[in-house]
Amino acid sequence: MSANSFGQIFKMISFGESHGVALGVVIEGCPAGVVFDQDLLVRNMQRRRPGQSSVTTARNEADAPEVVSGVFDGKTLGTPICILVRNADQRSQDYESIQHSPRIGHADDTWKTKFQHVDHRGGGRSSGRETLARVLAGSVAQMLCQQLLPQLQVKSFSSQIAHLQLTENAEQIWKVNVDEYITRLPHEKLNNEAVQLLESAKVAGESYGGTVRTFVKNVPAGLGQPVFHKFKSDLASAMLSIGATTSFEFGAGHEAVRSKGTEFHQDLQSAVYGGIRGGLTTGEPLDFSVGFKPTSSIKDTAKKGRHDPCIVPRAVPVVEAMTWLVLADHVLWSRLDRIR
Amino acid sequence: MSANSFGQIFKMISFGESHGVALGVVIEGCPAGVVFDQDLLVRNMQRRRPGQSSVTTARNEADAPEVVSGVFDGKTLGTPICILVRNADQRSQDYESIQHSPRIGHADDTWKTKFQHVDHRGGGRSSGRETLARVLAGSVAQMLCQQLLPQLQVKSFSSQIAHLQLTENAEQIWKVNVDEYITRLPHEKLNNEAVQLLESAKVAGESYGGTVRTFVKNVPAGLGQPVFHKFKSDLASAMLSIGATTSFEFGAGHEAVRSKGTEFHQDLQSAVYGGIRGGLTTGEPLDFSVGFKPTSSIKDTAKKGRHDPCIVPRAVPVVEAMTWLVLADHVLWSRLDRIR
Amino acid sequence: MSANSFGQIFKMISFGESHGVALGVVIEGCPAGVVFDQDLLVRNMQRRRPGQSSVTTARNEADAPEVVSGVFDGKTLGTPICILVRNADQRSQDYESIQHSPRIGHADDTWKTKFQHVDHRGGGRSSGRETLARVLAGSVAQMLCQQLLPQLQVKSFSSQIAHLQLTENAEQIWKVNVDEYITRLPHEKLNNEAVQLLESAKVAGESYGGTVRTFVKNVPAGLGQPVFHKFKSDLASAMLSIGATTSFEFGAGHEAVRSKGTEFHQDLQSAVYGGIRGGLTTGEPLDFSVGFKPTSSIKDTAKKGRHDPCIVPRAVPVVEAMTWLVLADHVLWSRLDRIR
Amino acid sequence: MSANSFGQIFKMISFGESHGVALGVVIEGCPAGVVFDQDLLVRNMQRRRPGQSSVTTARNEADAPEVVSGVFDGKTLGTPICILVRNADQRSQDYESIQHSPRIGHADDTWKTKFQHVDHRGGGRSSGRETLARVLAGSVAQMLCQQLLPQLQVKSFSSQIAHLQLTENAEQIWKVNVDEYITRLPHEKLNNEAVQLLESAKVAGESYGGTVRTFVKNVPAGLGQPVFHKFKSDLASAMLSIGATTSFEFGAGHEAVRSKGTEFHQDLQSAVYGGIRGGLTTGEPLDFSVGFKPTSSIKDTAKKGRHDPCIVPRAVPVVEAMTWLVLADHVLWSRLDRIR
Repeated sequence: MSANSFGQIFKMISFGESHGVALGVVIEGCPAGVVFDQDLLVRNMQRRRPGQSSVTTARNEADAPEVVSGVFDGKTLGTPICILVRNADQRSQDYESIQHSPRIGHADDTWKTKFQHVDHRGGGRSSGRETLARVLAGSVAQMLCQQLLPQLQVKSFSSQIAHLQLTENAEQIWKVNVDEYITRLPHEKLNNEAVQLLESAKVAGESYGGTVRTFVKNVPAGLGQPVFHKFKSDLASAMLSIGATTSFEFGAGHEAVRSKGTEFHQDLQSAVYGGIRGGLTTGEPLDFSVGFKPTSSIKDTAKKGRHDPCIVPRAVPVVEAMTWLVLADHVLWSRLDRIR
Repeated sequence: MSANSFGQIFKMISFGESHGVALGVVIEGCPAGVVFDQDLLVRNMQRRRPGQSSVTTARNEADAPEVVSGVFDGKTLGTPICILVRNADQRSQDYESIQHSPRIGHADDTWKTKFQHVDHRGGGRSSGRETLARVLAGSVAQMLCQQLLPQLQVKSFSSQIAHLQLTENAEQIWKVNVDEYITRLPHEKLNNEAVQLLESAKVAGESYGGTVRTFVKNVPAGLGQPVFHKFKSDLASAMLSIGATTSFEFGAGHEAVRSKGTEFHQDLQSAVYGGIRGGLTTGEPLDFSVGFKPTSSIKDTAKKGRHDPCIVPRAVPVVEAMTWLVLADHVLWSRLDRIR
Repeated sequence: MSANSFGQIFKMISFGESHGVALGVVIEGCPAGVVFDQDLLVRNMQRRRPGQSSVTTARNEADAPEVVSGVFDGKTLGTPICILVRNADQRSQDYESIQHSPRIGHADDTWKTKFQHVDHRGGGRSSGRETLARVLAGSVAQMLCQQLLPQLQVKSFSSQIAHLQLTENAEQIWKVNVDEYITRLPHEKLNNEAVQLLESAKVAGESYGGTVRTFVKNVPAGLGQPVFHKFKSDLASAMLSIGATTSFEFGAGHEAVRSKGTEFHQDLQSAVYGGIRGGLTTGEPLDFSVGFKPTSSIKDTAKKGRHDPCIVPRAVPVVEAMTWLVLADHVLWSRLDRIR
Repeated sequence: MSANSFGQIFKMISFGESHGVALGVVIEGCPAGVVFDQDLLVRNMQRRRPGQSSVTTARNEADAPEVVSGVFDGKTLGTPICILVRNADQRSQDYESIQHSPRIGHADDTWKTKFQHVDHRGGGRSSGRETLARVLAGSVAQMLCQQLLPQLQVKSFSSQIAHLQLTENAEQIWKVNVDEYITRLPHEKLNNEAVQLLESAKVAGESYGGTVRTFVKNVPAGLGQPVFHKFKSDLASAMLSIGATTSFEFGAGHEAVRSKGTEFHQDLQSAVYGGIRGGLTTGEPLDFSVGFKPTSSIKDTAKKGRHDPCIVPRAVPVVEAMTWLVLADHVLWSRLDRIR
C-alpha cells in the first residue's frame, strides 16, 4: 500500500525515522530531461531547517542532500530519483524518558496503539523532521514545473501567528521577500510583535498556532481531475498530511458560508473561487490557507528539548513543497486528458 | 489512473453523467460475507434525494438502485459490487442554452477547457447528481463497518445555514433525529428561520452557504496511515471532493490558530484534537466540519431550473457517506498494520 | 485494492457474476475525444460469443452491450466509461449440483476456500463469461489506439490445437481472415482436422488444449516501463490472467533456452527478440504465444453442460482484447516519459 | 506512476543506476513486528553476487547493505524500509564506447528512444545489477512469510543450461543443497558438463540460455486475487520483469497444450495444475519455470567486459526473491478476503 506515498503521476515515497540513519525520498514518475537544480534543492532545505533564528528550535540538522539515483549529467533520467539526508544530530538520550510516558499532544500513544513496536526516539517517523522528505521532493517538482511553465509561481507565508493577523493584499505579498521576516509574516510591525511573542514563549515553555497562506500565479486552467482528484481535494489532502494542521480553506473559504449567492457569484474570475471552480483550476490565481495548532512541546518538555514555540514560520517551505507536488502531479496528469 | 476512484483498500469507482443513461458505482475491495442491507441503501438514497421538501430542488429522481453484481444470497461475494441507478428524468432541453454560455459559478467552462468535448446537459458529470454514487458506496461501507464494529456511529447535520449557527453540544446532537428538521439543522427555532430564509430565496433566485458538521463515536484507536494517508488527510480529501465545498476543519479547527499551547494541550483526551492526534484516531469521538459556498444557481437560472437555494441540507447524507467510506477503508487497512 | 482492475493509465475494472444480473466494465483513464465505434464493439463481442459453430458451447449469450456512461455525441468524454451486458440465459438449475461437489479442474473449491461465501451458479465470477468484460474494454482500447496510430495492427490466431500445429509464417498470417476458419487455425487442412477432432470430443466428453499466437505490427518503439512494467511483463500478466492459460512466451520464447548467444544475437532487428528488448518495444513486430490447457469440463459434465471442447478458438478475441489493453496503457503512459 | 514498483500490499520500489552512487529499495506495506534477519539479507545478496565462481562475471560488488529506515531494535516498524547498497566498483571507462554504438541484444537503443537522456555507463538502470534491489526486498518478504508461515519453503534451481536438461523429480530436489553445484543445476554429471561448457564459452565469447525452475511447498490455499491478480498472473509478471527472460510456464506448462482433458484432469490434487487452479493456490506445491535467453554480451564485448556466459546460475536467487515478493503480497492481501 501507499501510506507513505503522495501523488498519482509524479509520486514521492517518503522514508526515514527522526533519529534513525537517514531520511529520504524516492520520486517515481518524474520525466526524463528535467534540468536538476542542486542549488534550489539546498536552498529549499535551508529554508526548512531548524536553528535559523531565535524563534526556531536549536536542533542542528546538517542536512546535506545526497542524490543517490535518477540524475545523470545534470538532468533527470526518467528513473526513480532517490535523495538521502543523513541524521547528523542523534541526541536520542534526550528522548529516553519518552519511552515510558507519552508526551501530551504528540502522537506517541496513537502510534504505539497502531504498531505496538515503535521507535520512541524523538517521535520516530511522527517527528516534524519527516517534512524534510517533502521539501526534497517538492524541490524536484518545482524544477519540473518551472521548466515546463516558467511563469508559474508559488508563494507561501505566515498570514497569522497567534492573534497577529495579516491583512495585506496579494499585490503587496508578491513584491516582498518573505524570508526577510524572521517569522515569515511579511509585515514589519506584526513580524516584530510575533518575534517578541515567540521569544517569550520559548522561555516560558509556551507555544502558539497560526496560519500559512499560499498564492499561486500563472497556473494553467483545467488542472485537477474530477471527481476524486479535484485540485481542491488533492490540495486539502496534501496540506492536512502535514503534522499539526487543523484546517484548510481556499478562496473565500469558511467565510463563503455566510455569503449570499447573488453577492458571491459576481463573475467567473472572482477571487472568491480561489482559482478553483468545479474542482478544476480556472487560470486565475490560487489562494488557500492552512491552520496550525500550537506546537505540542510545552512546559518542561519545551524548555528541555529543542522545539519551536510556533511551527508556522518553518511550515512555510513545507506548504510550498506540497503545493509544488500537487502542481507537478496535475500538470503531468493533464497530458492524459484528451486524445491529442 | 484513478481520477474517479476513492479509497485504497475499500475502493469505489464512480461513473455516470447527470443526463446520461445511468449513474453508478463499482466497489472493489469489499470483503466477502458482508450482510447486504438493501433497506439501508434505499433509505440513504432517499435522504439525498431532491424534492424532499420545500427547500430542495424539485428534480424528480426515481432513484431505484439495481445491485448488478457482487451480492448473492444476501451477502457480498468479495467480488466487485456494481450498483446502478437509471436517470429517469432527463429534461435535457432545459439545458440546451448552457451549451453556448457557461453558467456563473458552475464548472461548465473549466470542464470545457480541460476535455474540449463535454456533455453540456445539466453539468454532465460535474452535476451534484454525481453524489448519488457516493451515497451508494457509502451505504455499503456502512454495512461493512456496522457488522465489524456495531457500536460505531456517524452523525452529520447542518451546523450553520447562512448566518444561522448552531451552538448545541455533542450530547444533545446524539439524541435528536436530524431528519425531523427540514434543513437538518437540529434546533427548532433555527430550523424554522432557515426554512423561511430558504423558501424566500427560492422565489427570489437567491442562494446561501452553510456548514455540515459530523460526529463519530466509538471509533477504534489507531485508524489512519502515516504519513500521507493520515486519517485527517483522507477525511479532508473526501470532503473537499464534494462539489461546492470550500473549507475543512476538525477538532478546535481554525480556532486552534489563536490558542496558547498551555491551554490547548490539557490532556490526551481533550476535545480540541477532534479525535485525531498524529494523524491517527485516538479512540475519542471524531468532530469535523465542512463549509459549503452558496449554490451557484442564482437569479434567472435558479428560477427556471430545479435547484436548491442551499445545498447544505442535502449534503448531510453525502458527508455521512464519505465518512463511512473513509472509515471502511481504514478499518480494513488496519488489518495490515502488524504482523499479527 | 485493484484485484479486478487491469492497467495503470488506461484502466479497466471488470465486474459481474456469470449467472448474476449482468457483466460489465468501467474504463477509467480513457482520454476525451476518442471516436466511439459501436460497430467495432459489437463485432468484437460477436467473435467471443459462444455458439458460433459446432465446436463451441451452445450457451446462448444475447450480449447486447449498453454504454451507460462516458460517451456523448459519438465521442468519449474523458469520464469513466461503463458498458453493461445483461445475462440473458440464466439456466442456473443446471448448476445446482455444483453447490455440493466441486467440478474437477474448475475453481469451485479454491474460491470457496478463499471467500467462504460464493456464487456457485456456473462458476460465478470464475466463469469464462468474465472474459466478456475484457472484450468490451479491449474494444475501447482498440478505438483509442487506432485513432492515435492508424497503422497499428493486432492479429491473434490459433497456432496449435491439440497436436495440430501451425507452421505458417507471419507474412502469410497477415493476409488471411482468421475468422473464416472455424477453429481460427488459419490453415485449411489443419482447420478441417481440428474441426473433426473437436466435434468428436464434444460427443465423447473429451477436451483439448492449444496455443494462441499474436502478431502486432507498426508498434511504436519505446513502449513499456522499466523495470516492473516492462512491456513483456505486462503482456505476461495480461495473458496469464485469462482462465485456463498455463504458459507465455515471446520471440524465440522457450526455444531461446537452447540457443548459442552468437547465433541468437545476430542483429538488433532479429525476430528472436519478438519485438521487445530490454523490456521495451523495439518498433519491430511483436510476436508472442499463450498456452491453454484442455478445458476442465469433461466426461459427464461436458455432455450435460454447454461447454467448449477446446477454448482456444474463442480465446482468440480475448487475447486480442488484452493485447489492445496493454498497448493502450503503454501508448498513453509514454506521454509521461520525457519532459517534452 | 509505479513503473519501478512491484506488489500491491507488500510493495517494493527499486531505484539506482548500475554505475551511479548506489542501488536500493524502499519497501512499503511491511507490517510492524517482523523480526529483521540481517544474516539472511547478506546471505541472499551473496548468492546473487557476481564473481562467485569461474562461470560468473568477475565484476566486484562489495554489496554491503545499509538498512536506512524502518527497522528498530531488530524489528520492523511498519514504516517504509529503505535498504541501500553503494556501488563500489564503478569502472565506467570500460563503457565509454557504448555511448556511441549500442550493444547488440542490450537495451541501450530502446532506452535511448524512450528517454533520450540516458546513463550509458554499463546499461545504467537496464543493467542486471538492478536485480540486487529485488534480492533485498525479497529477503524482507521472506522474513515476513517465514515468521507467519514457518513451514513455507521456496526452492529455485537451474533446470536447464543450454541443452543440458535436468529430469530429477521434486522429492530429490528438496533434499539437495543447490548452492553446492556451481551452475546451480543440482545434478553432479550435468553440473560438471555445464561448468565445462560455460568456462569454454567465457574464453570464446560465447553465451548460453537456460531455465530456472521453482518449487514452493506448504503454501496456503486461496492465495491470489481474481481476476487480474491471479496468483499465476502475478507470478508471470514478476518473472518476466527480470531481464533476459523469454518464457514462463507453470504446472504442466506448455505441455498442457497437447494433453487430452480426460488425461489431464485426473483429480483436484494433480501436479499438472502446478498448485494453482482458477488462478488461486490450491495448497498443493507450486511448480513453475522461467526461460532465459543467452546473455547478450558475446564476442569481443564479452571477452573485454565482465559478464556471465550464462545468467541462469545467478538468476536463481533473483527468481527466489521475486517468488517471496509475490507470496508476501498475497499472504497479506488474503487478510482482506473475508469480513472476519
